[in-house]
Amino acid sequence: MDNLKVLIVGANGQIGKHLVSFIQDSDRLEARAMIRNQEQASFFENLGAETVVVDLEGDIESIAKAAEGVDAIVFTAGSGPHTGKDKTIMVDLDGAVKTIEAAKVAGVKRFIMISSFDTRREAILAASPSFAPYVVAKYYADEWLRGTDLDYTIIHPGALTNDEGTNLIQAGFDLEIGEIPREDVASVIVASLENDITIGKEFQVLGGTKAVNDAIQSI
Amino acid sequence: MDNLKVLIVGANGQIGKHLVSFIQDSDRLEARAMIRNQEQASFFENLGAETVVVDLEGDIESIAKAAEGVDAIVFTAGSGPHTGKDKTIMVDLDGAVKTIEAAKVAGVKRFIMISSFDTRREAILAASPSFAPYVVAKYYADEWLRGTDLDYTIIHPGALTNDEGTNLIQAGFDLEIGEIPREDVASVIVASLENDITIGKEFQVLGGTKAVNDAIQSI
Repeated sequence: MDNLKVLIVGANGQIGKHLVSFIQDSDRLEARAMIRNQEQASFFENLGAETVVVDLEGDIESIAKAAEGVDAIVFTAGSGPHTGKDKTIMVDLDGAVKTIEAAKVAGVKRFIMISSFDTRREAILAASPSFAPYVVAKYYADEWLRGTDLDYTIIHPGALTNDEGTNLIQAGFDLEIGEIPREDVASVIVASLENDITIGKEFQVLGGTKAVNDAIQSI
Repeated sequence: MDNLKVLIVGANGQIGKHLVSFIQDSDRLEARAMIRNQEQASFFENLGAETVVVDLEGDIESIAKAAEGVDAIVFTAGSGPHTGKDKTIMVDLDGAVKTIEAAKVAGVKRFIMISSFDTRREAILAASPSFAPYVVAKYYADEWLRGTDLDYTIIHPGALTNDEGTNLIQAGFDLEIGEIPREDVASVIVASLENDITIGKEFQVLGGTKAVNDAIQSI
């Protein structure tokens, strides 16, 4: 069987870099890194990954072109909660939705969304005024994806750290907020790509005590 | 027949104030002004309009409660394109969607959305970086409304001015951008409330040469 080819949108982010590296190490997966400009390419080329330069603030067609021939798309681009709110709406919301629409155009069924820990209405109301717009952006992106017939998985990671990955997590829903290393989020994405049991599901992930693959099986 | 009672969300805005005033002058309509705080009430009380104090950044239930017993809702709240982008996403997008959801909860079928002149994808791409987030917010609010089974009308006014109303407009689609006085937008809203031909439709409005009621008939 051919390797599964995966387009990583937001490859140059911290989760994205771990992810491309894990994918290139995998026997079954292959990465195409979507980046904003050519200067970001060498990191991925050194890993033997394809790169494609696309502006996420551009049109759906350019993203669809970048997605041609891939088997899955991972959206892990994020302006993050602390960038200007113009980027929150242009990237975290509209960039995500355009990527979902591009998946449809390119005929790519499998879609993995990296959301935030809690994007429910209650979480918007509970968020601080400076964090709430980010939660709203992720809420609408998640809602848009749920409304499609794509084979989606929505991953809701806890507070991200740069700690080394442990490959030990807990996965579920209605968890108490906690931390998780970005490297372990990347492992969860790989495990989701390799386990079709995650299709049509969404779950929170935190650092924990279960091996990633076991935790994923029981969601 | 009893008068049609209309909840105006964003009553204290410039269009909102003209609108409440026109509605109170009408033989067939009656206004309930939704405002952010009690200090804004006297303007509307002097017009003989009901007021209800609700924070649009609060929950759907408070908006639904404000909408109890009305026959129509007009959403004309707007942080405007020049406020902070946090308000763009919290008010122009999420405030609008919460109002739509509140209409469903309260069983109010008729919904009039004051959008911006062009909220299509092409308009997002063509917008300046500082204006684009506002267009994106209005795009998602309009899309959300189109996806409901409410009796909606989406009005797309041109560049708003504070000129005195002329009651002369042009209405249509794919118009070249131009100006329209806020007072005339308020007249268009009243005409839409009074003409069920506008249900399920959306149109652009600019200053023009046709009387508002005639222009509305031909959309």
